[in-house]
Amino acid sequence: MYLSKFFVPITRNLPTDAKIKSHQLMLRAGMIKQSSAGIYSWLPLGFKIMKKIEQIVREEQNRIGAQEMLMPTIQSADIWKESGRYDDYGEEMLRIKDRQGREMLYGPTNEELVTDIFRSSVKSYKSLPQILYHIQWKFRDEIRPRFGVMRCREFFMKDAYSFDLSDEDAKKSYNKMFYSYIKTFNRLGLKAIPMSADTGPIGGDLSHEFIILADTGESQIYADKKIFEIDFKKYNFDNESLQKMREDFSSIYAVTDEKYNEKMFNERVKKANQIKTKGIEVGHIFYFGDKYSKPLNGLIDSKDGKKIAVKMGSYGIGISRLVGATIEANYNSEVMKWPKSISPFDVVIIPNLSKNNTENLEKAEKIYKDLKKQNIDVLLDDVDENMSNKFKKHDLIGIPYQIILGSKSEKDKFEFKELNSKIEILSLEAIKLKLKKD
Amino acid sequence: MYLSKFFVPITRNLPTDAKIKSHQLMLRAGMIKQSSAGIYSWLPLGFKIMKKIEQIVREEQNRIGAQEMLMPTIQSADIWKESGRYDDYGEEMLRIKDRQGREMLYGPTNEELVTDIFRSSVKSYKSLPQILYHIQWKFRDEIRPRFGVMRCREFFMKDAYSFDLSDEDAKKSYNKMFYSYIKTFNRLGLKAIPMSADTGPIGGDLSHEFIILADTGESQIYADKKIFEIDFKKYNFDNESLQKMREDFSSIYAVTDEKYNEKMFNERVKKANQIKTKGIEVGHIFYFGDKYSKPLNGLIDSKDGKKIAVKMGSYGIGISRLVGATIEANYNSEVMKWPKSISPFDVVIIPNLSKNNTENLEKAEKIYKDLKKQNIDVLLDDVDENMSNKFKKHDLIGIPYQIILGSKSEKDKFEFKELNSKIEILSLEAIKLKLKKD
Repeated sequence: MYLSKFFVPITRNLPTDAKIKSHQLMLRAGMIKQSSAGIYSWLPLGFKIMKKIEQIVREEQNRIGAQEMLMPTIQSADIWKESGRYDDYGEEMLRIKDRQGREMLYGPTNEELVTDIFRSSVKSYKSLPQILYHIQWKFRDEIRPRFGVMRCREFFMKDAYSFDLSDEDAKKSYNKMFYSYIKTFNRLGLKAIPMSADTGPIGGDLSHEFIILADTGESQIYADKKIFEIDFKKYNFDNESLQKMREDFSSIYAVTDEKYNEKMFNERVKKANQIKTKGIEVGHIFYFGDKYSKPLNGLIDSKDGKKIAVKMGSYGIGISRLVGATIEANYNSEVMKWPKSISPFDVVIIPNLSKNNTENLEKAEKIYKDLKKQNIDVLLDDVDENMSNKFKKHDLIGIPYQIILGSKSEKDKFEFKELNSKIEILSLEAIKLKLKKD
Repeated sequence: MYLSKFFVPITRNLPTDAKIKSHQLMLRAGMIKQSSAGIYSWLPLGFKIMKKIEQIVREEQNRIGAQEMLMPTIQSADIWKESGRYDDYGEEMLRIKDRQGREMLYGPTNEELVTDIFRSSVKSYKSLPQILYHIQWKFRDEIRPRFGVMRCREFFMKDAYSFDLSDEDAKKSYNKMFYSYIKTFNRLGLKAIPMSADTGPIGGDLSHEFIILADTGESQIYADKKIFEIDFKKYNFDNESLQKMREDFSSIYAVTDEKYNEKMFNERVKKANQIKTKGIEVGHIFYFGDKYSKPLNGLIDSKDGKKIAVKMGSYGIGISRLVGATIEANYNSEVMKWPKSISPFDVVIIPNLSKNNTENLEKAEKIYKDLKKQNIDVLLDDVDENMSNKFKKHDLIGIPYQIILGSKSEKDKFEFKELNSKIEILSLEAIKLKLKKD
């Protein structure tokens, strides 16, 4: 992609209502544009990053055998009345009357709808276990939407639902999803801590939040540093190992202020290991048994012919929110550096351009074609602008690697820079090797 | 994928309210489930097909330089008041009040919102031409939603918007999109006829519908058979050639009943070439100049420093509708056969299973693994059911190729069937070659 053709409306003016780093960066770098309070359009740069996150989440859901489907955004109020949540949900639910006067709503979550699909399709224990998921827009009518995509009204979310015959089986599904989440966040370049959590309005008795550390987070976090030493790769995919993994994580102190107890923190965590910081929730998983299947009649024929309410869990990851959260975790207010797995491009070529000399641009185009052939996704900054402005701009866009064609380039060697590191002078072959690593 | 694990709730009961083939098939084959009037959930089988269509549409949009972004589903009423369409649009627009009492709506289309993004981002002719597109859910509150996904309320659509400095440039964008549409439908295995159309509520003076032939279509079609002889591959991508392509298509008689004139039809088309049938609209493109940019102040600095309202076109493809339309075009009420490019799987293995003999299943699993290694996406029907039921089921699911392990299989040779064709006895190597062809 040539930057001059790329629709990235970069702005130098800092919007006054953007209080946190991610919101500021996303507006400045032309990733999003607000269309009304708490509702955003995703411009091509932001969209590309969000799609990469979505794809990693999808791959890791598929890997544990979850099946993708898609539920609509607009739901009938009827099933929410059946479950009893229609009145409970309060004003955050966007309620709608259609032209026939039917009560509808914009789904804030999908426990009811997925239970309805399940009850009409699955009758026998033989079809269990099942995990269904979808990645769909949700709406919560926040009274004070703020912080850009971190607390907006229309947001993009992956929500999965597990169906099992017994509590025991259901916990196996829960463990699989726990593992999948750890792996997903790892692939996204994020260090997420699973924390035992309250279940809130979803209900149930087993729940974990996945929280990444960031100074600007909304929750206060108290944790033992040792939690980062657990390597998920040492566990394998049988339930015993997955159960052990969850226990290993649970055995190390890590709580939000909701569950914080100073005395216990000091007893269980030695001073040198104590982390007190803020965090951002990026995922939340729940086991709630028959809380929805019972009122909604989601019944299964068990082996001995009895009707049993199916045991369910639900598992969310905020995809649009993860774009903001990743920025909060990686942007130091001067330089943004995207994790390689979700960077909008693999590398950017920045030639020093001048009107009378087209040599650098020609060189840049040659390198561009060469990298494209290797399936390296490359941005070429062909905009007529001085180098200092270019560098400032690319500190916002955050592509982790730069090939700079300026005064220091030699005939077949170029300046190569990894953001936040020193410049090296390398041949194109050496650069390709660096880009392909990992 | 093993069929026993795949969430495909096949039903043998024909739903009474499903009047057309595609609606019947999609419900019977467990592709969709209605959640309320004109609103559907896409179950894994239907979802997988829709995603393949979406991806082909995306690739062909990207190929002509259109850039993907994403606008939200919920829009503020304000910009619709600016354009003057808020009152015009009538009851098909789903109007919503949020908790603060603000007037919102579920976007039925996005001319206003994209013009708003454009006007705040692009100031100079240097940034033109631009084509932006998104693939997003839309809502039209149809008074009588029917025919399943063919005329539903919540639907999935690709809509693109072009921005140019002059009418002349804008027509170049229009021609590119015209070409892209022909190519897209071709890749989807559909024969789409472009027909000059009325512009309706979108406005403007140049417009084409893309219509595929199907007995159950909503529009009456009159066309000259010769239109199918035009091979889009002979045109190249410069504007002269694209303009010629559009003229070649336009020179051959093809109209819907709106523009039909019996006398002209008989004069221009010889009897043997006359097609009178029904058709389904699967795409619609419009050029409308400054219809939206003028009231919304979408202004551009031209080369000589004047402010000019940018010239716009819009270009839609109904992605969810295409699933239904493809069925209407390919399902003869007994056998559905998906075009290879969007088939849910490349091939299905159907072993004859019996309780005392596991040999066929073992063989099937071996073939399954072998094909998977070759990146062939394969479904294994491991459900314990008699062969006659299995065949009926796969006539609904519509995977174009079957490997049958039954009485006629030899040691290293298997029955291989392309739907609607005769069975051959082939080695696995020969089968792989067949599957990889095209």
